[in-house]
Amino acid sequence: MYGEFELIQRWLAPARPGSADASGVSLGVGDDASLMQPTPGHELVVSVDTSVEGQHFPPGAPAAALGHRAVAVSLSDLAAMGARPRWCLMALTLPDANDDWVAEFARGFHAVCDSAGMVLVGGDVTRGQRAISVTVMGEVPTGQALRRDGAKAGDVLAVTGALGGGAGGLAAWQGGARDMEQPLLKRYLLPEARWQAGEVLRGLANAAIDVSDGLLADLDHVLSASGVGAVLDSASLPLADGLAARLGQDAAIEAALCGGDDYELLVSLPPSRVAQAKASLLALGIELTPIGHLTETPGIQGVKIPSRAGWQHFHGGTS
Amino acid sequence: MYGEFELIQRWLAPARPGSADASGVSLGVGDDASLMQPTPGHELVVSVDTSVEGQHFPPGAPAAALGHRAVAVSLSDLAAMGARPRWCLMALTLPDANDDWVAEFARGFHAVCDSAGMVLVGGDVTRGQRAISVTVMGEVPTGQALRRDGAKAGDVLAVTGALGGGAGGLAAWQGGARDMEQPLLKRYLLPEARWQAGEVLRGLANAAIDVSDGLLADLDHVLSASGVGAVLDSASLPLADGLAARLGQDAAIEAALCGGDDYELLVSLPPSRVAQAKASLLALGIELTPIGHLTETPGIQGVKIPSRAGWQHFHGGTS
Repeated sequence: MYGEFELIQRWLAPARPGSADASGVSLGVGDDASLMQPTPGHELVVSVDTSVEGQHFPPGAPAAALGHRAVAVSLSDLAAMGARPRWCLMALTLPDANDDWVAEFARGFHAVCDSAGMVLVGGDVTRGQRAISVTVMGEVPTGQALRRDGAKAGDVLAVTGALGGGAGGLAAWQGGARDMEQPLLKRYLLPEARWQAGEVLRGLANAAIDVSDGLLADLDHVLSASGVGAVLDSASLPLADGLAARLGQDAAIEAALCGGDDYELLVSLPPSRVAQAKASLLALGIELTPIGHLTETPGIQGVKIPSRAGWQHFHGGTS
Repeated sequence: MYGEFELIQRWLAPARPGSADASGVSLGVGDDASLMQPTPGHELVVSVDTSVEGQHFPPGAPAAALGHRAVAVSLSDLAAMGARPRWCLMALTLPDANDDWVAEFARGFHAVCDSAGMVLVGGDVTRGQRAISVTVMGEVPTGQALRRDGAKAGDVLAVTGALGGGAGGLAAWQGGARDMEQPLLKRYLLPEARWQAGEVLRGLANAAIDVSDGLLADLDHVLSASGVGAVLDSASLPLADGLAARLGQDAAIEAALCGGDDYELLVSLPPSRVAQAKASLLALGIELTPIGHLTETPGIQGVKIPSRAGWQHFHGGTS
């Protein structure tokens, strides 16, 4: 779009690193491509996620929250691999070139990048339906990444933080809530990616995934990749603050099982390591809650699997 | 979108590498993120480009061409740095889940990836206005990347291939042309990224940029970054086949100067290296044409700078 260059320069260039040594960036935003120095002995960890207005976030959501959320959603994938965040690229599509909107968006975006020690090294701004695509790049010592396929029968299943906040927050938004301090709304629009937890769990957990599509769906990915089954204890599911009060107890559990957008980590770890994992995460202010265990018998047991209709209820868009 | 997982599995997973050693991929599409092994002694080179329907390509353009074009546009940025293509990620947004369309799109996409030795390591498929965002990752020996800021007064300016084909091809499409063998249309919808040329020019050129916004606009980026000026010889501009016949001679030169989407390389190199650069590129079947030289006097001279209206004519969308 005409003006793209000015927009990029104004809002993206400030992210240029002060110290190339610390950031690993030799050449930041402003050339045809950026140059970075990978850390020897490490693998590069990369993922991309797109958020589209009306599908992944509601029209009218605050710009700063969208900037925050777009980074957090992608960071969550690095967290699930136990990777340290390093660099990211952003492809931003906007219906119009509104300076105030972009300034707010950039503020939210950079705040999360800064807190994760991640540097924006590339961007493209185009005109069209509002959408944000973020590519994140992290690093992990070679061979030590957390994967989906390492879970073992006998492992304890545990989840960081609380579940159902994404679905509960969407319900709150649809009910008219707009105060970003409202706990459920905050969980939905300002999720905290668990990349610090991911780094701590590396070497402790046998497998990990982030809960983005809903606990049952994401657990199923781990079970399929690892060739095991699971028994869940629905009474132990950590529900997001205010979820049961808003939805009622049954729907709250259904939201915890099927709601997406929680961006917690679901990990599988040997019983002998649970205490250490809990203590290490608690030092970061993050709860780790055992919610079941893995078995050789395939499938998921111990919870009432919601009907297809219930499942779909949480995946029908945001408008 | 519902079905995203199936789409990704079906069309992206076949890109999983056969040989992890050759591709540098330890873990491909299918986990939360992919794992790659960077080459020691190299810098990582990354860029992202988004193509939006109606802005960057016309509605109804063939799916295979869009797949081809989306990769080529991003590869062109790696070419401009002299980088070797390694890995890419694709964020694809579609108004509907049409299997046939995605199959054709993937065919075009993978064909270009294969020809460039690049492996798709991540993807996200979402619902919305049709758009394709491609993040490319390449490698270059540390410190040897081509940049915009190395051009020197006295350098020869030269361009690969031919100019104006992007603008001419768009005009052909708007005139009803649909035969992808039509030379201008092919130049517009099936551009060839010059990554091989970029690797050859590394060590020969002082600066490089890809011609994506139009020769004058992109030259201006090089001049600004390097603190020099340029004298162009408009009679020497290599015009795309059929361009003058379609547009007339004057408009053809204007298209070569201002039209975007050419994806050629514009390089600045010492006069003593021109012969070697020409010979090395000719061995790849790529012409390199001197079109002027650099001066200490700022600005661009030797060509009639088109009016703002003429300039904008080529940047008003594609519909």
